Amino acid sequence: MPESTTQPPLTLRMHDRDNVAIVANHGGLAAGTALPGGLVLVDRVPQGHKVALVPIPAHAPVLRYGTTIGLARQDIAAGSWVHERLLAMPDACGLDGLPLATIQPEPLPPLAGYTFEGYRNADGSVGTRNILAITQTVQCVAGVADFAVKRIKAELLPQFSNVDDVVALAHGYGCGVAIDAPDAIVPIRTLRNISLNPNFGGEVMVVSLGCEKLQPERLLPPGSFNIVDQRHSTDAAAAAGADASAQAPLDVVCLQDDAHIGFMAMVEAIMRQAERHLVRLNARRRVTVPASELVVGVQCGGSDAFSGVTANPAVGFCTDLLVRSGASVMFSEVTEVRDGIAQLTARAATPEVAQAMIREMAWYDAYLQRGGSDRSANTTPGNKQGGLSNIVEKAMGSIVKSGSAPISNVLAPGEKLRAKGLTYAATPASDFICGTLQLAAGMNLHVFTTGRGTPYGLAAVPVIKVATRTDLARRWHDLMDVNAGTITDGTTSIEDVGWALFHLMLEVASGRKKTWAEHWQLHNPLVLFNPAPIT
Amino acid sequence: MPESTTQPPLTLRMHDRDNVAIVANHGGLAAGTALPGGLVLVDRVPQGHKVALVPIPAHAPVLRYGTTIGLARQDIAAGSWVHERLLAMPDACGLDGLPLATIQPEPLPPLAGYTFEGYRNADGSVGTRNILAITQTVQCVAGVADFAVKRIKAELLPQFSNVDDVVALAHGYGCGVAIDAPDAIVPIRTLRNISLNPNFGGEVMVVSLGCEKLQPERLLPPGSFNIVDQRHSTDAAAAAGADASAQAPLDVVCLQDDAHIGFMAMVEAIMRQAERHLVRLNARRRVTVPASELVVGVQCGGSDAFSGVTANPAVGFCTDLLVRSGASVMFSEVTEVRDGIAQLTARAATPEVAQAMIREMAWYDAYLQRGGSDRSANTTPGNKQGGLSNIVEKAMGSIVKSGSAPISNVLAPGEKLRAKGLTYAATPASDFICGTLQLAAGMNLHVFTTGRGTPYGLAAVPVIKVATRTDLARRWHDLMDVNAGTITDGTTSIEDVGWALFHLMLEVASGRKKTWAEHWQLHNPLVLFNPAPIT
Repeated sequence: MPESTTQPPLTLRMHDRDNVAIVANHGGLAAGTALPGGLVLVDRVPQGHKVALVPIPAHAPVLRYGTTIGLARQDIAAGSWVHERLLAMPDACGLDGLPLATIQPEPLPPLAGYTFEGYRNADGSVGTRNILAITQTVQCVAGVADFAVKRIKAELLPQFSNVDDVVALAHGYGCGVAIDAPDAIVPIRTLRNISLNPNFGGEVMVVSLGCEKLQPERLLPPGSFNIVDQRHSTDAAAAAGADASAQAPLDVVCLQDDAHIGFMAMVEAIMRQAERHLVRLNARRRVTVPASELVVGVQCGGSDAFSGVTANPAVGFCTDLLVRSGASVMFSEVTEVRDGIAQLTARAATPEVAQAMIREMAWYDAYLQRGGSDRSANTTPGNKQGGLSNIVEKAMGSIVKSGSAPISNVLAPGEKLRAKGLTYAATPASDFICGTLQLAAGMNLHVFTTGRGTPYGLAAVPVIKVATRTDLARRWHDLMDVNAGTITDGTTSIEDVGWALFHLMLEVASGRKKTWAEHWQLHNPLVLFNPAPIT
Repeated sequence: MPESTTQPPLTLRMHDRDNVAIVANHGGLAAGTALPGGLVLVDRVPQGHKVALVPIPAHAPVLRYGTTIGLARQDIAAGSWVHERLLAMPDACGLDGLPLATIQPEPLPPLAGYTFEGYRNADGSVGTRNILAITQTVQCVAGVADFAVKRIKAELLPQFSNVDDVVALAHGYGCGVAIDAPDAIVPIRTLRNISLNPNFGGEVMVVSLGCEKLQPERLLPPGSFNIVDQRHSTDAAAAAGADASAQAPLDVVCLQDDAHIGFMAMVEAIMRQAERHLVRLNARRRVTVPASELVVGVQCGGSDAFSGVTANPAVGFCTDLLVRSGASVMFSEVTEVRDGIAQLTARAATPEVAQAMIREMAWYDAYLQRGGSDRSANTTPGNKQGGLSNIVEKAMGSIVKSGSAPISNVLAPGEKLRAKGLTYAATPASDFICGTLQLAAGMNLHVFTTGRGTPYGLAAVPVIKVATRTDLARRWHDLMDVNAGTITDGTTSIEDVGWALFHLMLEVASGRKKTWAEHWQLHNPLVLFNPAPIT
């Protein structure tokens, strides 16, 4: 990577208390470089990495975001590169005696008048896309479902121009698992709730094998799925045989059904059922709805030291705009908020919300410990190369996606969202597992920030990707939807990027703009969180 | 299901000691039916379900396969339906004091002269198919790899007529995982060893993101992957730029590489690398090799009470033919052999092999217990509907796939096969996880028996599916490759079906026959076994 020669040296300090700053210049800064305040670099410091602003004695705290991100392992001279090997990671904060809803921030001022064009569902939720999803009880049927979906896309979908896509919800669960283990509720409710995602319009159809553990009525018990709302039915739907009864039974194609003679009988049964749902989906039209109908999941992945400086603060500003608009926003990733738990419990709307958050952290601590691990397993080689020394520093940068609103609700993994406002949806930090769980919670729009770069995409919802650095946004010009890197050099502000993201969300939600992942049809498979054993 | 009217009543008793038999007639037998020996049925007994041949007092053992599959919960009259609710499951056999290599069976007589046409690899292994596999270090790249594979199949593959397929090895591992946890070795070595499967010809190519935890050199350290054998190079390969050095470095396309400007640069980099490998794969030809080069993984799924009567004994007979031919055969599925562990340790070739088997069982017992479960979590609703009352009965029927040869080797999950003969490859019983782990072990041909019916298929190896019942084989006439159901009514013997399967294996391995799963291109995704936590 060439040393930066064109730009003056630029370092970024996040908080008055901080005794380190990060180098912003692309290519880093050479030893001997004089910073604007007069400090001269002792070492070469790569982009995103930390420089000591004052001498830091051995065992003293190294402060970034006003927080102790580590203790110096040795005396560190001012101007030195404070790399990860110089930092001892602090112990995780205990879960006793945390502040519970102590901050009680002023409610944010309401923001009215913003709308988007969405698909209103019978249960009141709103879709940003109009997709036929094919639910699967078990991995055994995945090959057959794929075969059928290819034919549906080729032979049926072109006749239904208002339907955006047909998506097979393949997964590795359903059989060969300890389905009665205490933790099995997590993958089961995840699959159930994904089927009910607002982007699927309540048109639940299931492909089942027959002998699996996760029987259709266990996956979707009566009453758990949307009843077809006949207000949306059309003559075409009626002609296609839409059930006039409000108590429509679960629509299941069971491959082991004696009626199927030969493989094509199975495929054609799936296609016939799909067509009934396509007719109904196709009759739907976008209507103007308030921005409060957005359900946004925010996430970061491939983070670097700029994540907490550019993209995540911009997302945090936008999170506040969404909360002010009455929308739902979820932030997640247990190991990436664990070190900031005291900030979050203090910001909880009520002591009960704070306690729910502590309950989720404690569950995850125990889960990791059972597997011989802890929160430090989170950081990646790329995080470290990008300047993040450890999970404490990473968490401080991650948590700012949540903005400043009171946290009004907490979800356990796989649960469905229950309220508007800011929700902490507890999930692993694994990008695809977090995305899968946010889908289950009912997300209809996804925002994903990245510093190192990832081509992340999901089939079920649009994913808006935000780059933390201009260099990444330039190289990945047709993968990144927003560049937050301009915040670094002062050409835009956090507020500018936050507002731009908010406006882009409304455009994408309305279907007027496609994200790059949609343009290229980049879809990562769902990955379930199954903390229970495999059998 | 209609009662059988055309066939005389038929029941099957597996062992002289048994006090139950199963009903073979399709549709079951009605109450009042007189069996050939004079016993009159007290209840209607469904197909595959057990009838008491004598009065069984409360607390007395119910015997099938000469084994106690349960204790009667109440007095059971002769002629009664012995359904699962009447059986109390025995405790799992302890792992102390088991017989260690006590049987020392006579070695089976060698079987010479059988061959197939296969692709000989540089490391001595033999492929049954000639496939380009695209290894992935992390799930993040899956969407991009899929996009590239679609283009490779459309634009490149037609030029390389000797190459059977291009397969993207997508998976959910690589990041967002506790990669240093004690159990992380399982998914890592699984992915490593799958890349080295004989059907991929040693042409390892990797797509990496860049920042992931599972870095390419951690997945495939120097020396772990095959060095390109230049004896197989051709002028065409040389022209395409094949590296002439025997110390070829690992071939990695890293998406975060600064050189990629825009999405298409990534896709084209993958395509360029793929073409180099396709050139070399295309230059290969099948050669005649002894049957000893087969590496067969046997598995069952969607089992019923006939699995242990028809398909699995036929597979067991064929397993013996393979061992006699000097081939490698793996049987697996810990929870489906757990209740027969004493039979297996006795049959081990050496006390060390028996101890290795006990070690794997103990590990799995602890793994299940940690998750609040045990071996009884194995059986499915379909198993029970098919007549299998519990895991003990299921295990007795499952274990017979292993035939009668001494067990000469044991693999832990994800390990690569080290020896010819009969190997116990410890895996979960989950169909796709077991198949994924057998692929990692080096399987080049897969045999899968099913009673309830499953459309199982893998992209990397041919899967021969064997039906336990004629009814299933008839209905699924274009999914089932072999019907073992004819064993029930005596029209064929276990030996007949075993020999037919052996001959079919040689045909399929030679590429002269395709399995039904290959014909329809039914491929289930890989599913990794990751007993370590997610972060």
